[in-house]
Amino acid sequence: VRTPGAGLKLRVEVPPHHVRSYEVVVRAGALDDLVSRVMLAAPADRYALIAPDDIVSLHAERVLGMLRRGGLDAELLPFPAGEKHKTRETWAALTDRMLELRFGRDTAVVALGGGVAGDLAGFVAATYMRGIAVVQVPTTLLAMIDAALGGKTGLDTGAGKNLVGAFHPPRLVIADPLLLGTLPPVELRSGLAEAVKHGAIMDAGYFEWIGAHAPAILGLDPAALEQLVARSVQLKAAVVMEDPYEHGRRVVLNFGHTIAHALELQDDYRLPHGHAVAMGMVAEAAAGEAYGVTEPGTRERLVETLRRCELPAAPVVGSWDALASTMRLDKKARRARPRLTLLERIGACARDPGGRWTFEVPENMLAAAVRLAAQDGPAV
Amino acid sequence: VRTPGAGLKLRVEVPPHHVRSYEVVVRAGALDDLVSRVMLAAPADRYALIAPDDIVSLHAERVLGMLRRGGLDAELLPFPAGEKHKTRETWAALTDRMLELRFGRDTAVVALGGGVAGDLAGFVAATYMRGIAVVQVPTTLLAMIDAALGGKTGLDTGAGKNLVGAFHPPRLVIADPLLLGTLPPVELRSGLAEAVKHGAIMDAGYFEWIGAHAPAILGLDPAALEQLVARSVQLKAAVVMEDPYEHGRRVVLNFGHTIAHALELQDDYRLPHGHAVAMGMVAEAAAGEAYGVTEPGTRERLVETLRRCELPAAPVVGSWDALASTMRLDKKARRARPRLTLLERIGACARDPGGRWTFEVPENMLAAAVRLAAQDGPAV
Repeated sequence: VRTPGAGLKLRVEVPPHHVRSYEVVVRAGALDDLVSRVMLAAPADRYALIAPDDIVSLHAERVLGMLRRGGLDAELLPFPAGEKHKTRETWAALTDRMLELRFGRDTAVVALGGGVAGDLAGFVAATYMRGIAVVQVPTTLLAMIDAALGGKTGLDTGAGKNLVGAFHPPRLVIADPLLLGTLPPVELRSGLAEAVKHGAIMDAGYFEWIGAHAPAILGLDPAALEQLVARSVQLKAAVVMEDPYEHGRRVVLNFGHTIAHALELQDDYRLPHGHAVAMGMVAEAAAGEAYGVTEPGTRERLVETLRRCELPAAPVVGSWDALASTMRLDKKARRARPRLTLLERIGACARDPGGRWTFEVPENMLAAAVRLAAQDGPAV
Repeated sequence: VRTPGAGLKLRVEVPPHHVRSYEVVVRAGALDDLVSRVMLAAPADRYALIAPDDIVSLHAERVLGMLRRGGLDAELLPFPAGEKHKTRETWAALTDRMLELRFGRDTAVVALGGGVAGDLAGFVAATYMRGIAVVQVPTTLLAMIDAALGGKTGLDTGAGKNLVGAFHPPRLVIADPLLLGTLPPVELRSGLAEAVKHGAIMDAGYFEWIGAHAPAILGLDPAALEQLVARSVQLKAAVVMEDPYEHGRRVVLNFGHTIAHALELQDDYRLPHGHAVAMGMVAEAAAGEAYGVTEPGTRERLVETLRRCELPAAPVVGSWDALASTMRLDKKARRARPRLTLLERIGACARDPGGRWTFEVPENMLAAAVRLAAQDGPAV
């Protein structure tokens, strides 16, 4: 097929990797069927249950017991809880522990916990022996409606959040709202901020529903929680399916997050993620109004709903210069100019004339908007 | 679409990730067209040229100059040469350097060097901001015919080689045999062992051709080298396309490697990879003959050809127990029992009655085969 001396030009076809699809189950009590669901969606020789150490007695021992009683060969691998441990070091330690325990390629990871567990255990699965299966079992509201869904995994570095990672879709997501009954109030509110975001960027009716049902949600009403998780999962799944690898519309999910990430980094991750997102949304709504693409009054509606959810509604800004410098490294920055997702109004995101879902807001305008939003003062 | 209280079951579709295909160019002088090929196959805002520090003056500065003269925004990121630096630490340092240099998502990596550069820079690309494009520009025979092709990336850990990694297909592979003119003889022979393997597992005619042309190849004859690279690339590409994620037939490429990896680890990676592969192939051929699936005389034909290639033909084994324990952790081990790829004869791999391409050779039989093969003594 080739002439000696003329070289060779050859095209290598790359068939799809990954699963073609996965199921997300949202139901109070869904965890009871964990074993049969895991056996069907992620059959494996052995299972590595990865969970933060602060939920070992609360959830992890129960899940480990379920897996083992179901006849599965499972080991629990705890890691130190907290965003500050979502690092390359923790990833390396978990990987080394799995190697020590002689987990082979035919292993599935069960990621149990909040967003940190999902991102971290997901990245362990994405990279262990070039990729093994992962089942996501989120235990926080934030993880149920956000991190567990969509296949993003990642680690933080000194330079910012999620700067290292991979797309590694799970084989299965089980979201059981009954687990939220033991969630600390600050974490429930943190998740609620992402739900408010889902409403703000794509469903005005849902946005209103959250505002109206905030007392039931904060009071841990099971029906309200199940509805909340189910609605947010539907909305997020629709975006993820339209744009699984964040080449286009998926970036709308970053509404509020450019400023939120910078606030979190500046605060060394002590700020709860949902609080940062709440502040970020208000600031970015102010920026959108200043830039002229966001309907006037949008920021006020956001502030009102966030207050009903007992979330902070105004960004606490230390030094604007430091914040701006942090933002410049955001993954969405192209050539070091940050680009923001902006609302058109509550329930819809704006697109620029070129059809893109992000905008390059001039830095002085952004600085002014953040300062304006900050004047409302913290709500909680 | 959902009944409140009944929960939600939703299926998330995952469209293919990655490029759908990529081109492999094998031609003496192919590097001259680097810039236009890179611009077409991996258009990006900025380029990170990753190369080991021992080829900076030999190749990397030339390639950097070509990229920059071609109008591309490129930076050179050297790393300490050698397999012992194919670690999570070097990966973290390269990633941090890219973050420092404020490389965004719209970056492409150019991996220049041998197998270590391809695996390491490939994994940097696979994980930087959840994955960016990579162009493979191999500078060694081994990398041209093996590592650069097929999308495998990986790092070594204390427990073994390539235990952490990802499948991340390149956008383009440029193999220019003219670069081999400056390759140290030991590295040329190291690559030649993989070419012998390609012949042994799937092309008896090629196996004979290598034996007959060994003097020309070792003498760096440009036409012989181009033919060698082109033929091996064709053979490997065929396997990779048939089984891109190593669920089945691709495992034949591991012929000789189960024992080779164990030998390398035992020797703390001082042993050249090709020497380890040569020894591993002889030992695994002996095992196949003992197991009864490999045609008698196959090991002898292998030994003869390897000697013509000035490669060691007999495994140097320290302690069999240590070697066996190291092998048990091999990625291909299922439930800690190593499985071997075995030849049927020169030019064809054997399948078990279930159609699988690997065999579980009893450990005492493997030990005896390795000891038998070792009796021939080193050839070089």
